[in-house]
Amino acid sequence: MSATTDWSLAPASEIAGAVSAGTVAAREVVAAALERIARLDPAVNSVTDRLVERATARAASLDAARARGDALGPLAGVPFAVKNLFDVAGLPTRAGSRINRERAAATRDAALIERLEAAGAVLVGTLGMGEYAYDFTGENIHDGNTRNPHARGHMSGGSSGGSGAAVAAGLVPIALASDTNGSIRVPAAFCGCFGLKPTYGRLSRAGSFPFVGSLDHLGPMARSSRDLALAYDAMQGPDPEDPALAPHPAEPAAPDLDRGVADLRIAVAGEYFARGGDPEAFAAVAHVARALGAHRSVAIPEAARARAAAYLITAAEGAALHLDRLRSRAGDFDPAVRDRLIAGAMLPAPFVEQAQRFRRWYRDAVLALFREVDVILVPSTPVRAPRAGQTTFVLDGVELPVRPNIGVFTQPISFIGLPVAAVPVWLDGGLPLGVQVIAAPWNEALCLRVARHLEREGAVRAPVATLDETR
Amino acid sequence: MSATTDWSLAPASEIAGAVSAGTVAAREVVAAALERIARLDPAVNSVTDRLVERATARAASLDAARARGDALGPLAGVPFAVKNLFDVAGLPTRAGSRINRERAAATRDAALIERLEAAGAVLVGTLGMGEYAYDFTGENIHDGNTRNPHARGHMSGGSSGGSGAAVAAGLVPIALASDTNGSIRVPAAFCGCFGLKPTYGRLSRAGSFPFVGSLDHLGPMARSSRDLALAYDAMQGPDPEDPALAPHPAEPAAPDLDRGVADLRIAVAGEYFARGGDPEAFAAVAHVARALGAHRSVAIPEAARARAAAYLITAAEGAALHLDRLRSRAGDFDPAVRDRLIAGAMLPAPFVEQAQRFRRWYRDAVLALFREVDVILVPSTPVRAPRAGQTTFVLDGVELPVRPNIGVFTQPISFIGLPVAAVPVWLDGGLPLGVQVIAAPWNEALCLRVARHLEREGAVRAPVATLDETR
Repeated sequence: MSATTDWSLAPASEIAGAVSAGTVAAREVVAAALERIARLDPAVNSVTDRLVERATARAASLDAARARGDALGPLAGVPFAVKNLFDVAGLPTRAGSRINRERAAATRDAALIERLEAAGAVLVGTLGMGEYAYDFTGENIHDGNTRNPHARGHMSGGSSGGSGAAVAAGLVPIALASDTNGSIRVPAAFCGCFGLKPTYGRLSRAGSFPFVGSLDHLGPMARSSRDLALAYDAMQGPDPEDPALAPHPAEPAAPDLDRGVADLRIAVAGEYFARGGDPEAFAAVAHVARALGAHRSVAIPEAARARAAAYLITAAEGAALHLDRLRSRAGDFDPAVRDRLIAGAMLPAPFVEQAQRFRRWYRDAVLALFREVDVILVPSTPVRAPRAGQTTFVLDGVELPVRPNIGVFTQPISFIGLPVAAVPVWLDGGLPLGVQVIAAPWNEALCLRVARHLEREGAVRAPVATLDETR
Repeated sequence: MSATTDWSLAPASEIAGAVSAGTVAAREVVAAALERIARLDPAVNSVTDRLVERATARAASLDAARARGDALGPLAGVPFAVKNLFDVAGLPTRAGSRINRERAAATRDAALIERLEAAGAVLVGTLGMGEYAYDFTGENIHDGNTRNPHARGHMSGGSSGGSGAAVAAGLVPIALASDTNGSIRVPAAFCGCFGLKPTYGRLSRAGSFPFVGSLDHLGPMARSSRDLALAYDAMQGPDPEDPALAPHPAEPAAPDLDRGVADLRIAVAGEYFARGGDPEAFAAVAHVARALGAHRSVAIPEAARARAAAYLITAAEGAALHLDRLRSRAGDFDPAVRDRLIAGAMLPAPFVEQAQRFRRWYRDAVLALFREVDVILVPSTPVRAPRAGQTTFVLDGVELPVRPNIGVFTQPISFIGLPVAAVPVWLDGGLPLGVQVIAAPWNEALCLRVARHLEREGAVRAPVATLDETR
């Protein structure tokens, strides 16, 4: 590799090449990552468990394998970390909560961890998250807030705030996260990195703590579209242990990543997705569209209703999941989470049933749009990262609570499981913004090609935060 | 045909043979049925619309086709009638309600009517039902109660009371009905006839008024297992207009109907299904098991919970369907139906979500039983037909309300969409009882073979009611 002196800041693709070639030992790469975490994570508070022994042993075994002449995988020696709702053998799967810390330690890693490690990656830590993933802020009363590495007085975004912050702070090149209503795309936007929310049913959720079964997605975050694709490709494939996994063959995205976008019909979503946010949110979309030469626009019908329906289903299914804990352990929840779950527990069932019916209609209506376009662009969030603790913001002249309204543009997309690559846009000297690059189901490869093209054109980028600087 | 002088009482199989052979004109068969309906239906009140013109014209066209030398279908000239939740071109689809009578007339027949008519059958009327199918009694405040043809002071059973009564009264050899929680199997038991509730997703529901989308099944009722199989076979096959229809090829049941049961592992369900009913209910099952030489028993796990879950899902989904009508037209509902729907409208969503989760567990648990057995026998109802208007009965020493408890043995079976042939048992001089012959999904043919074997052995039968006699 070229100018990078700190291996912990190298892209996954370069690390894997260098480890496979013997230019650097996996042990060195992992040690550098662990050292950087120890030194810099206190500034952002993204890591909940450092896995020094495990990671060191794993790296040593990779080096030994190479010494024996074994071929290493496409992620050889690449350090990664996971949101703490992934099972990690030997740790309780806390899911950002206090209550879950009392659970027995997991006896086995989550499926996606096993797959990344099978490709040579090395798990170095677990990452903070909003309690039970019901969060868009990155705040957590049990673990303390995860700070935005680019401006530590601001939110990292949630619920995968630890994943976004760890990637943006250069602690790991790849982090795993989950996205139910925006929990990958929001921290990707606030922290200025890439995230992939795959198609619903694409990646195995076996060994992860759920939130809303019909909306939960797992996916990677990274500082480059290539690393995102490498991680995604390593995690694809069937898994009999996840009954929600759709029977779909693995479709590697990396081989076609550099094919460009000349063959793609790309449109900006109007109406709902063109109002109700700060001007910069739409400027970020326009910036991306310009870089792609995209002049089409498309109207996603009934998006406001889709968001409302996603909201209802989330509250009700989330409450169903936590009902016993709400009854017996109410005082041990984060109040901001608990109160929404209790409200969800009292939602009348027919409201949710009607939301499900609408969902079927909406899915058909949106899928029909993909006959005319291949990719749709919408903002990830209506605002840049708010200040930590900020409770309201003003959108289109209306003062609104921050927490529920960060997801206005992400919820209508995940609601029907569409694949999205979230790309980071830096318009000016301020904090980054995110744009969702959306495709029809199973077309993750298109989203990633678009992200890669934007990155090569210099239109999007995910710089490592300078953690000495305080903003 | 042999001794039958009244063509309206002949089995469908004999009618079709005679009409195809020219022994009798379809016009004569249909006229006899229409005459019998006009003469005898007032005693039972099962028919809501007589379709004299339509049926007469249709019969004439069959006779003309035969005169031209065209081959007629396997149900040539067979009169049939349908529960009034099937669309019939030219009639509003009332679904037993007052409110729906204001709907526009249907412009097309329901898919299953089209299929029976494509096989040569002739629709002669529509049949009464409990309001919006939320009923086990056969009582209806708008149309008047449908009386049990075998004892007119007793319930016909619901919600397909008109279908059961019309078949038992000899008004038609075949009637179509629907079954959400027992609405075919209960009137089959109370009226002493055969009914088939196919696998969920087997027969098209296009053009029928729904009740609970995830539980609604359509199927035939008849006075013989052969007629049941003939009707079922004519109705199978894909239908793009029913999105819930499972992609499953047609699997005719009639060809194997007489194969006997020597190769089948048949078991009686114990525990939940062996208590909570009158002794005769279990005597009927024992009678059937004896006739089949069945000595096995099997425990269906958590059946009480399955019934409770079916109950919750029914109330909530039913309320979701009727929410607008409940808001605007509450006074036009049958109060017994309305009050349950309003209760359903207030059910907390997480209760229903937990019921759905349990449903998945229960389905897997019950399907596993079919590795050991092919057919399971359980009672259709806990009691013989109660008296009309009866509001309570005593089961195992506990006084219980009649309406909700008639379905204790049917709900846990339809809850996971298993196919069931309901067979009529006459133990003594009293009213009949029903036994459910249950198989694994898609194995309707097994259920029908068992029913046919029992019928040939004389263990079950569906006599035409003598309507002069009053009991």
